[in-house]
Amino acid sequence: MKIIVDAMGGDNAPAEIVKGCVDAVSKYDIDIVLVGKSDVVETELKKCDYKGNRISIQNATEVIEGEDDPIDAIRRKKDSSMRVGLSMVAKGEGDAFVCAGNTGALISGATLIVKRIKGIRRVALAPVVPSAKGNYLLIDSGANAECTPAFLAQFAIMGSVYMKKFIGIENPRVGLVNIGTEEDKGTDTVREANELLKKLPINYTGYIEAREVPLGGADVVVCDGFTGNVILKFMEGMASAFGKMLKKAFYKSFLTKLGALLLKDGVVEMKKSMDYKEHGGAPVLGAKAPVIKAHGSSDAKAFSNAIRQAVKLVECGLIDNITQGIAEFSAEEE
Amino acid sequence: MKIIVDAMGGDNAPAEIVKGCVDAVSKYDIDIVLVGKSDVVETELKKCDYKGNRISIQNATEVIEGEDDPIDAIRRKKDSSMRVGLSMVAKGEGDAFVCAGNTGALISGATLIVKRIKGIRRVALAPVVPSAKGNYLLIDSGANAECTPAFLAQFAIMGSVYMKKFIGIENPRVGLVNIGTEEDKGTDTVREANELLKKLPINYTGYIEAREVPLGGADVVVCDGFTGNVILKFMEGMASAFGKMLKKAFYKSFLTKLGALLLKDGVVEMKKSMDYKEHGGAPVLGAKAPVIKAHGSSDAKAFSNAIRQAVKLVECGLIDNITQGIAEFSAEEE
Repeated sequence: MKIIVDAMGGDNAPAEIVKGCVDAVSKYDIDIVLVGKSDVVETELKKCDYKGNRISIQNATEVIEGEDDPIDAIRRKKDSSMRVGLSMVAKGEGDAFVCAGNTGALISGATLIVKRIKGIRRVALAPVVPSAKGNYLLIDSGANAECTPAFLAQFAIMGSVYMKKFIGIENPRVGLVNIGTEEDKGTDTVREANELLKKLPINYTGYIEAREVPLGGADVVVCDGFTGNVILKFMEGMASAFGKMLKKAFYKSFLTKLGALLLKDGVVEMKKSMDYKEHGGAPVLGAKAPVIKAHGSSDAKAFSNAIRQAVKLVECGLIDNITQGIAEFSAEEE
Repeated sequence: MKIIVDAMGGDNAPAEIVKGCVDAVSKYDIDIVLVGKSDVVETELKKCDYKGNRISIQNATEVIEGEDDPIDAIRRKKDSSMRVGLSMVAKGEGDAFVCAGNTGALISGATLIVKRIKGIRRVALAPVVPSAKGNYLLIDSGANAECTPAFLAQFAIMGSVYMKKFIGIENPRVGLVNIGTEEDKGTDTVREANELLKKLPINYTGYIEAREVPLGGADVVVCDGFTGNVILKFMEGMASAFGKMLKKAFYKSFLTKLGALLLKDGVVEMKKSMDYKEHGGAPVLGAKAPVIKAHGSSDAKAFSNAIRQAVKLVECGLIDNITQGIAEFSAEEE
């Protein structure tokens, strides 16, 4: 298996990306192609003292920066590491693409270069997010601010396949985010999507209120990208706020400091379990090949985890399964 | 000052509502009219051993239940405690209405019976929500699932007036929820609202990402009711999830239990500060008279707090201030 990696994307590129790849080839039976400025990437590889033959370098002279306009950058920067890497995967020169760079550009690139699976109307960004009971897939978490009912129905299918094939949940519960559980609640789009979802061969459990999401009320949480992004970012902010408040409570007096000391391990573990960045990258679902968005702040360990995720995605045949699921849905639609 | 109270609304009505009113008249210089089935309310008043003359009863034979369809209930149940109470406020027989009952019906009732302030397009539900830095007003938190840019602009004005006049923040920072801070992010509606908000005589600080909301990034958080409801309920769910995880960490071993004991006060305080229900009710902003939605699960103390809020709303002349702010906005729009 060959994984294509954008060596230049992310806050800690290329150093941590290259380190992560060196770690990954030591753990998994894979080849990696590092795409980026070859002299820079080579220097980093040398720093890692890598002597093997499973990592190669593909030169690309340009870099898409975090602040670049996504669509514009993917169109204009033809020799960027991201675009060159995506093209390699599109041409079958690699099995999956992993990138910690500009999210919007990656989503545009997945659509324009790797292209969508037949019948798929929009690709979606779908991170696995921790809840009190385990994990859920949040689809879409920001690729499409506005969605039609059909987009949401396709997200439900893709998310269901992902949780079954990739995570191994037998009959994943799919919930559609709404502001109430009564049939007539919410927007027209949500109500129409509700009718579509009822007809799908998935375990659709109906509307889910946002209260139930962090409590583990569904395995696949379906919503438009605006709502998903609000959920994901609000969670991040609240975890941070919670940490600050906890710290304040801990540092109040000598006795509370002692109490905090006794609880340290448990709280660190809790903090870790709440951090969705620990759970590898987010797949861009709906593209013709596995594309993984690693977190922008990925260090070597996180990036190596994202590569592991790509490997597992290829192994479990996710793309074929999604293709099949969508074909059935599209046939029914016609 | 005369406060009209729906004695029959909420999970703990009428007992806790009546108790809350008895508490309120002992603390504030107000009269209260309890609207509801007079025999039932009278029995509750007797249980409280209330001997004063500041609480009176207005008979209303029907009750709007939590599961009733909001618009249908407010239209059909003409002799319901909610509708009779709202009519009294509309006719000037009371200065404010406080109700722990069916939220949707109360919003419909505020619109149909109390009516909107001239120029106001939609009333909004606007709870004060705790953040890591203090409190913010979340407007709209669920009254309008879909909003036009003009609705959002009016919410910004109303919210700004509320935080200034009621909470006493001199120059409240107003943020518009979006999925990025760049100008071109989000939906058309949000982008158009952004342009409207820039022109308003408020301290508009631009787009706010959901991550910054619980960290106190704005004093007034403006969004459509779908997004606001997702934020509010996700917060509730996440606070509950935190609590569960914290408990697990606390009960791990003898030493962690000891640690938890030392930290108990701080954690209880923290839990309280995160509970928006502790902050009284949510005003239905945009109606011609103060209408307060007390939390459905209000006990006597919470309900008494909601009455205090109604008193303060009347005293600070909120309605006049909103009327003036909206008149200026509408003049500019024409």
